[in-house]
Amino acid sequence: MSVVIKGADVAAAVKKELQEETQKLALHGIVPGLGIVRVGAKPDDLAYERSAVKKLGEIGIRCQVFELSENISQQDFFNEFEKINTNPDIHGILLFRPLPRHLDEETVKNMINPLKDVDCMSPVNIAKIFSGDDTGFSPCTPEAVMEILDRSGIDLQGKRTVVIGRSMVVGKPLSMLLLKKNATVTICHTKTKDLAKTCADAEVLIAAAGKAKMVTADFVTEKSIVIDVGINVDENGKLCGDVDFESVSLKAAYITPVPGGVGTVTSWVLARHVVRASRYLNKVDK
Amino acid sequence: MSVVIKGADVAAAVKKELQEETQKLALHGIVPGLGIVRVGAKPDDLAYERSAVKKLGEIGIRCQVFELSENISQQDFFNEFEKINTNPDIHGILLFRPLPRHLDEETVKNMINPLKDVDCMSPVNIAKIFSGDDTGFSPCTPEAVMEILDRSGIDLQGKRTVVIGRSMVVGKPLSMLLLKKNATVTICHTKTKDLAKTCADAEVLIAAAGKAKMVTADFVTEKSIVIDVGINVDENGKLCGDVDFESVSLKAAYITPVPGGVGTVTSWVLARHVVRASRYLNKVDK
Repeated sequence: MSVVIKGADVAAAVKKELQEETQKLALHGIVPGLGIVRVGAKPDDLAYERSAVKKLGEIGIRCQVFELSENISQQDFFNEFEKINTNPDIHGILLFRPLPRHLDEETVKNMINPLKDVDCMSPVNIAKIFSGDDTGFSPCTPEAVMEILDRSGIDLQGKRTVVIGRSMVVGKPLSMLLLKKNATVTICHTKTKDLAKTCADAEVLIAAAGKAKMVTADFVTEKSIVIDVGINVDENGKLCGDVDFESVSLKAAYITPVPGGVGTVTSWVLARHVVRASRYLNKVDK
Repeated sequence: MSVVIKGADVAAAVKKELQEETQKLALHGIVPGLGIVRVGAKPDDLAYERSAVKKLGEIGIRCQVFELSENISQQDFFNEFEKINTNPDIHGILLFRPLPRHLDEETVKNMINPLKDVDCMSPVNIAKIFSGDDTGFSPCTPEAVMEILDRSGIDLQGKRTVVIGRSMVVGKPLSMLLLKKNATVTICHTKTKDLAKTCADAEVLIAAAGKAKMVTADFVTEKSIVIDVGINVDENGKLCGDVDFESVSLKAAYITPVPGGVGTVTSWVLARHVVRASRYLNKVDK
């Protein structure tokens, strides 16, 4: 029977630290500001936005939403983006992607001030994660995974760690963060042979494949620490992870649930990035 | 007894292809040009430079050496670099690093035109390797490894591949190139426990640890394909790799020697980058 690692506990701890930080920043007259740039009004984006505005607001981060028409011209979009990019009250920028097809995402990635790039789209921040330089911003989800491992007292040094998935949003940056903690990292994917065996050989298994309940009991041992990054919908329309919680939680040593696991921590990592960006841009030490 | 994969054969094949390419480019009036920027005159840099100028010259690449005083001021250095960066006859730039301490390497990395960055120091090219975008330039040594595997007919799809070493010059970018070929990649390093066992479990083992003869016969099986990226000096002052060739070559299926392996191919990868850069910058298709 697994110990269930609750995202809420980790989230609460991060939130408390950030609250103290924003109070200190207030003494300097600084209110951390996040600019949320949304082109169009997709329901998923709106839901995420509402939740982020609410959560970040609770700890004194001011969110400003910039809604742009989905028919905006490329030039107008760049002009609007540049205004936000240079606005001194905006310390972090979250741009919902993918952009509509007629807007060039590559140009925006190179345009964003790397110091405001709290969601890691600039090549400068991507190159920093890759090279193990922690002065940049990593994508929020992989950092949430690291936060959970760290706050659960799991030392990664020398540990056999398997990541399923090689996306730029989770798998690859997460592998680099794990390497930086001196884990031995194996990156698996759809073309991996003997996936179950490779996973069962891991001390820490992180599922970021985007495939409902694909990690079954034969992927783990009694010693496995299992972190589930997946957010899927199962055959009954219920939210579920990449891990078959029912069977795996009977066997592994530790497991994170979905919902209530990694996803719960992600917005607090975003909040931390905004707070950090506001310190950087105002040249205030921690 | 291993089949020894000879770097010279791979090098000869790449050289022949490039020769045909430069002949075609000549019809467009284009002579690919490499600018070699050297601050000071370290013997190692000079040796590499002489060899590169000679080899690249053989296939019609014009190398121009810019020797700068090791006492050059930061501003003068940036001015000189910018001249080379915008010189239309220079398509690729090779800057010997590390620079003297008083010169800021970070600024140059961000300054170099990514299209001329044939040795992969720009964050733009680093981010591209990380994200699997092959329109950029990778560092030459990892690409030489891929060239050897490819020209030896070794299909990496789904193969258990272990890389020893996590540097930004070899280990990490190589892992990304292997992933792009659908290998299952494990990155090992000094903190890895049970290194020999992990390596023996690999179908393809690539040693880039920088430690003389550390890979011994117990790291391999009769089926192992062993690529040795190390360049070290052994206890008798003789050049050797990270692999103990004497014992490993009696057991593994394939092995590359040192010298005469990966290192032999590296300058031809640099040459290919310069040729490609000259095509990009002149907007000529292959």
